[in-house]
Amino acid sequence: MFLHTSRLQFEAKPDRPDAHYARKLQELIGGAYGEMTVTMQYLFQGWNCRMEGKYKDLIMDVATEEIGHVEMLATMVARLLEGAPSEVTAQAVADDPVIAAVIGGMDPQQAIVSGGGPTLSDSNGVPWNGRFIVASGNLMADFRANVAAEAQGRLQTARLYNMTDDTGVRDMLKFNLARDTAHQNMWLAAIEELQEDGLEGPISPSALFDEEYAEHASTIWHNSDGPAGAEGGWASGTAPDGVHDFEYVMKPEPLGGKGTAPTPDPLLYATSPANLGLIEKAIRKLT
Amino acid sequence: MFLHTSRLQFEAKPDRPDAHYARKLQELIGGAYGEMTVTMQYLFQGWNCRMEGKYKDLIMDVATEEIGHVEMLATMVARLLEGAPSEVTAQAVADDPVIAAVIGGMDPQQAIVSGGGPTLSDSNGVPWNGRFIVASGNLMADFRANVAAEAQGRLQTARLYNMTDDTGVRDMLKFNLARDTAHQNMWLAAIEELQEDGLEGPISPSALFDEEYAEHASTIWHNSDGPAGAEGGWASGTAPDGVHDFEYVMKPEPLGGKGTAPTPDPLLYATSPANLGLIEKAIRKLT
Amino acid sequence: MFLHTSRLQFEAKPDRPDAHYARKLQELIGGAYGEMTVTMQYLFQGWNCRMEGKYKDLIMDVATEEIGHVEMLATMVARLLEGAPSEVTAQAVADDPVIAAVIGGMDPQQAIVSGGGPTLSDSNGVPWNGRFIVASGNLMADFRANVAAEAQGRLQTARLYNMTDDTGVRDMLKFNLARDTAHQNMWLAAIEELQEDGLEGPISPSALFDEEYAEHASTIWHNSDGPAGAEGGWASGTAPDGVHDFEYVMKPEPLGGKGTAPTPDPLLYATSPANLGLIEKAIRKLT
Amino acid sequence: MFLHTSRLQFEAKPDRPDAHYARKLQELIGGAYGEMTVTMQYLFQGWNCRMEGKYKDLIMDVATEEIGHVEMLATMVARLLEGAPSEVTAQAVADDPVIAAVIGGMDPQQAIVSGGGPTLSDSNGVPWNGRFIVASGNLMADFRANVAAEAQGRLQTARLYNMTDDTGVRDMLKFNLARDTAHQNMWLAAIEELQEDGLEGPISPSALFDEEYAEHASTIWHNSDGPAGAEGGWASGTAPDGVHDFEYVMKPEPLGGKGTAPTPDPLLYATSPANLGLIEKAIRKLT
Amino acid sequence: MFLHTSRLQFEAKPDRPDAHYARKLQELIGGAYGEMTVTMQYLFQGWNCRMEGKYKDLIMDVATEEIGHVEMLATMVARLLEGAPSEVTAQAVADDPVIAAVIGGMDPQQAIVSGGGPTLSDSNGVPWNGRFIVASGNLMADFRANVAAEAQGRLQTARLYNMTDDTGVRDMLKFNLARDTAHQNMWLAAIEELQEDGLEGPISPSALFDEEYAEHASTIWHNSDGPAGAEGGWASGTAPDGVHDFEYVMKPEPLGGKGTAPTPDPLLYATSPANLGLIEKAIRKLT
Amino acid sequence: MFLHTSRLQFEAKPDRPDAHYARKLQELIGGAYGEMTVTMQYLFQGWNCRMEGKYKDLIMDVATEEIGHVEMLATMVARLLEGAPSEVTAQAVADDPVIAAVIGGMDPQQAIVSGGGPTLSDSNGVPWNGRFIVASGNLMADFRANVAAEAQGRLQTARLYNMTDDTGVRDMLKFNLARDTAHQNMWLAAIEELQEDGLEGPISPSALFDEEYAEHASTIWHNSDGPAGAEGGWASGTAPDGVHDFEYVMKPEPLGGKGTAPTPDPLLYATSPANLGLIEKAIRKLT
Repeated sequence: MFLHTSRLQFEAKPDRPDAHYARKLQELIGGAYGEMTVTMQYLFQGWNCRMEGKYKDLIMDVATEEIGHVEMLATMVARLLEGAPSEVTAQAVADDPVIAAVIGGMDPQQAIVSGGGPTLSDSNGVPWNGRFIVASGNLMADFRANVAAEAQGRLQTARLYNMTDDTGVRDMLKFNLARDTAHQNMWLAAIEELQEDGLEGPISPSALFDEEYAEHASTIWHNSDGPAGAEGGWASGTAPDGVHDFEYVMKPEPLGGKGTAPTPDPLLYATSPANLGLIEKAIRKLT
Repeated sequence: MFLHTSRLQFEAKPDRPDAHYARKLQELIGGAYGEMTVTMQYLFQGWNCRMEGKYKDLIMDVATEEIGHVEMLATMVARLLEGAPSEVTAQAVADDPVIAAVIGGMDPQQAIVSGGGPTLSDSNGVPWNGRFIVASGNLMADFRANVAAEAQGRLQTARLYNMTDDTGVRDMLKFNLARDTAHQNMWLAAIEELQEDGLEGPISPSALFDEEYAEHASTIWHNSDGPAGAEGGWASGTAPDGVHDFEYVMKPEPLGGKGTAPTPDPLLYATSPANLGLIEKAIRKLT
Repeated sequence: MFLHTSRLQFEAKPDRPDAHYARKLQELIGGAYGEMTVTMQYLFQGWNCRMEGKYKDLIMDVATEEIGHVEMLATMVARLLEGAPSEVTAQAVADDPVIAAVIGGMDPQQAIVSGGGPTLSDSNGVPWNGRFIVASGNLMADFRANVAAEAQGRLQTARLYNMTDDTGVRDMLKFNLARDTAHQNMWLAAIEELQEDGLEGPISPSALFDEEYAEHASTIWHNSDGPAGAEGGWASGTAPDGVHDFEYVMKPEPLGGKGTAPTPDPLLYATSPANLGLIEKAIRKLT
Repeated sequence: MFLHTSRLQFEAKPDRPDAHYARKLQELIGGAYGEMTVTMQYLFQGWNCRMEGKYKDLIMDVATEEIGHVEMLATMVARLLEGAPSEVTAQAVADDPVIAAVIGGMDPQQAIVSGGGPTLSDSNGVPWNGRFIVASGNLMADFRANVAAEAQGRLQTARLYNMTDDTGVRDMLKFNLARDTAHQNMWLAAIEELQEDGLEGPISPSALFDEEYAEHASTIWHNSDGPAGAEGGWASGTAPDGVHDFEYVMKPEPLGGKGTAPTPDPLLYATSPANLGLIEKAIRKLT
Repeated sequence: MFLHTSRLQFEAKPDRPDAHYARKLQELIGGAYGEMTVTMQYLFQGWNCRMEGKYKDLIMDVATEEIGHVEMLATMVARLLEGAPSEVTAQAVADDPVIAAVIGGMDPQQAIVSGGGPTLSDSNGVPWNGRFIVASGNLMADFRANVAAEAQGRLQTARLYNMTDDTGVRDMLKFNLARDTAHQNMWLAAIEELQEDGLEGPISPSALFDEEYAEHASTIWHNSDGPAGAEGGWASGTAPDGVHDFEYVMKPEPLGGKGTAPTPDPLLYATSPANLGLIEKAIRKLT
Repeated sequence: MFLHTSRLQFEAKPDRPDAHYARKLQELIGGAYGEMTVTMQYLFQGWNCRMEGKYKDLIMDVATEEIGHVEMLATMVARLLEGAPSEVTAQAVADDPVIAAVIGGMDPQQAIVSGGGPTLSDSNGVPWNGRFIVASGNLMADFRANVAAEAQGRLQTARLYNMTDDTGVRDMLKFNLARDTAHQNMWLAAIEELQEDGLEGPISPSALFDEEYAEHASTIWHNSDGPAGAEGGWASGTAPDGVHDFEYVMKPEPLGGKGTAPTPDPLLYATSPANLGLIEKAIRKLT
């Protein structure tokens, strides 16, 4: 069960409104790597965690914090939209090209749909959706996804940081950047600890190594003609799992046969000589 | 530019058709972590790579291989669907509950839309979409996402491996499992090499550390009441980046003020005492 | 079966083109609360109505009218786009910032995809979809949704009304506003009549009141710390259904146990001490 | 900012696993009217509320409760999936048609993607998305949507209640049904209070009544031939807003002219006699 | 403006309910090539048509008919769902595997969401959306799409025809099949007429033939190794437009240079040696 | 299996960056009729083709070429974005309205998400999805869709050609236009050849002509009041299939009965007099 306090985790006060920027910030609310994604990703990972204790408790700690990040951003967007042009605009546009540009670059739904507030969408107005999250039950696979999400999140925040000089906005983003640093480190530490605890190996899942074809578990296929791929550390030597030895296959050959499709079911009407009689019959019937 | 050979990268021949399993395999074609995702993710990363050389060439090597994985799975699905029930079924269902169950569990679009072939959707029939991929230009952030994708991909393949005893299907999956092992190792090696080459640090992006609020860059907030979160390696000690020292904030307090929204624009008709006069006027006009 | 007359239900002639506004009007065509939504919502409610007579006939009356509203808006959008800039723009942009702004704020698909006409999307270009409608078969629940849809629809129309001073556009919107007033009143009247006819009570569905836990059917839980929630009419007194007495739970406590997840299936590879042996075995096999 | 306790708001313990039902319950998690929708709808309404005090505090109270409903359902789904068939199934299907049917009716992603847990999707596996919510800033319009959402939610819960006889599942649903009763009453009470407080009238928004065409604000158009629509209370008498008098237009005539589209821009290549010269020229050039 | 009659265009009465088939029929309602698609595609083409007269009038004739096809199918689905199992199912499943299979294969939303009626989704429950339609303003390009849509529609109808032996369902489908035959012929005739009228040539758009690179306007590139492509009529001889002569390029070579990406903007943090100084500085700041 | 060469199929070098145009070009990458669609449509058609030989080999030839078209466009977009404004913009906007307009019209995700590169979305930022493709197994139906796709693709390319005067961009588009001409001709030739080979007739599928209702297979229904539809070649004479004779039904009458829905299941709570007793009971229980 959850409880809420009316105070924000961190201040979210812009110096002045900026309707363009309010649109861009939507990326951090409802984008594929926005705060909504980490919120729901961590919540579902926590609820799906099959082991009571430190990992589950950590996940729920961070998940709960992230709801508050959505809150901060939603509040910031509403404040950035204060006083955004919403009135008769034909004359305004003709009179002032800067106003024209602002109106052109705004997210129209922030006004028409939300009345000056945020939507649950990204910076192009595409709604957030539940396929953005992953909660597989395998903590190694999921923590990998969490590091990745925090990395993309901090990257996008950093880009947005450079797109404004509003000190109030930057103040909040300085907090967000720091949290993304902390969370990247945290998930990296948790990945290490999963291995130290013997719960997972570096490759997910820690299973079926004796079933998979060992001869294909350490090769890199040279399917593109750029020659430099062979120069990397992945082309030879011991792999990060400490077990496999990399091999770079310079002239890869297909191992399978032709990719033929099976004989069609006549009643599904795929084009095929096998169906020729049916077609003739059909056309004869017709004429 | 691309070229194609009609032979598959690896054989994709089931022992016998299995319409239920053909539905499940759709997850590896068009799911969020299926082969379509890694194909397009790597292609766009390669095209967006800002540095000629080993990283870009590697990405294009693997991207090109992955198109062939979609091909193997698409071929396998068509073969698994051979002879699937497509005819008058009311009687068949009444006569044979196993047939009834098979029909009930099939993906109806594999028959009605594709005529016995795969769709570009996941195992629930939801279409693949372009938001599943990420190609940010920042190789560290993207390689983190690539490890994550290969980990989820191998995990799903492993689960599917256990859901069949068809030796032909398992043969192909043994190849796929091995490739996912190789690719996880490969991206992990590339992450190490990015750091050895001085191109990226462990935290993405390697920037703005002097701007973010340092006091919030290493804390874990205890927002949920599970007590064991404090016992992990992320609660104290040096963080994986070698720079920050973790700190666990046991009784977190909000740092910001109340999350109020600004005074509304009267012409957007948000409910507010500030708009009271307008409402009265409107209702008076009406009556 | 349907018939069509080439005349519009109401005139849709702008004084002059306005490409920016043509984008915004898309919200009333393909937005979640646009005319397409009420059209399809009412059609499916009518087709799904389990009672011949006045309710079904009313629904079909209004549904059929709404198709004509989509038509009016589609026509208006095409006319607003007449003469919109579609030619070589690099020079034009450099020469005239107002043209630059207009081009920047246009919906590019109205030109590239529709050739100067509307799309079936909202003002951010996101396509309308079938999950926007509801037709549950329960008329009380559905009429509630209909009032809500007409209210949001009139609200968005009112906001758009203020964003133009084109008298032709405003002429059409004055009609649309009036229809949304009529339809809100109409669905509110139908809600009253459903109760007068004894077909539905105020709470949907009129069922299972003797099964639900009565002690939880009238409480408001104070899960957020804002104190004023206790001051409303929902905090005490008789509820609108005339049966329940509101109660405000000031210090809510969870009633359930811990939200643990069950022991995992080993073959799904969730991280769990229960799977430890499997992981050890896997890694041992590997090495 | 939010806090979390590990205990559920109400118990969520099924008597026994039921993989079919676990799929159906997804509707209450990620369906258009599931708990995720009310959670995010209320959160965004609260953050977008332009008036401190009882309305905002109430919204945040309920929003915060709803997160816990998603939690209860997610936990229930994981428990219902315990022991669901995940292993080699070809033989099992042949041996036991009931197992065959169970496998056929399961959500394959609950196993393959989530490892025996819930997804953020509906009962057909379609992901939840941000367009399901509305937070317009106008409390009357939004509370109408809230009543509608709670009505559809209770209706779906009631249907699901009848689809199981598991006493543990029913126990939780009895709580959910009661909460949906309480919340319907609560939003209805809030709608009354908005009017008593003079903040909103019954028609949303309380504006532009003097601009809309009064003669079209109270008519019902008889566009379908079912005759009984004229018998309802919406066909005559005073409307619920107490101001308009209903009128039923028995033989409606279109009021506008023909729905013609304007002359096309030649460079957009719409088919038109106006472009004939261009086509001739193009074909002449070609030959 | 539209009018509606309560009678269906053609009868839609199944002999008996069939809940499985009710799910499959959803493909013809809300699938990418279902009746909803042709309805909205033709409506938007008609509204976007830039030429009064026979083409526009034809489009509106057919568009209006198609709304009635959605109506027929929606009615049929509701009738096929009559008496579908909706009650306590755990025991029923254990008792009767056929019932188990039926329940497993049903669309759960037809019961839970629609109360025994259709949804606006396809046979996998994925909602119909506005990107399924095209209305470009160019009648040749659009009529090509219309033939394609009617062809896929008739194909899917034919497949569904074979999946039932219910004479009532087949009766309706015999009508639908015939309409799809008529409409394919009709659009093919309209394509011929567009050319006879000199409004369009066979290649869309009839423009820019003097600008496109003539040497690439008639070649087929042999990018895959299957040798038989060179044997078709497209490999040599005069093309259908009567102007171009086909040529088959047996050993295609890329004509462009390397696909490099430009130097990155430092503030977007793409990985690049050009940004090395920034990274060093960032890490130095950090330590 | 696929191979890749680092050289582009054709050059993709703009004269100078143009961030607005980079957004528009997204339509050709990820729009419903962009290069991604034809790529995946042809790949899935090839893999699903039930006949080895010239048709399958042709499909794979073209499919493989199309991947390279996505590559060209992705490269072009990255180059068009070089130097696009990404820094502190508040001052810049105030200083220079042209910069303001450029920023307003950019795709924000090309900067924030892709770091100056393309996304897999259309010109409104909506992601490409797998429902855009069709691969039915029936080559006639699919080749019709292919002509349609190439026609829309060339039309959109032609429109985009007129929206730039950058000679480098136009150079690439001149190649693309030519390829779309070649491919339209090619699919038209293949349609002819399918008929010459006796594999398919003009109407898809070539089946069930003896089952469909012949009297409805050649009529055009006059459901809209525009009179000119009767003047076209589709109103009388022999249809393109050479078999049917067109007939124009001037005063169409519905052939079916009323579109009633069946008696509801009481446990699904549809509103119905049949459920009256239940409601009374429910309300009595409550009070």
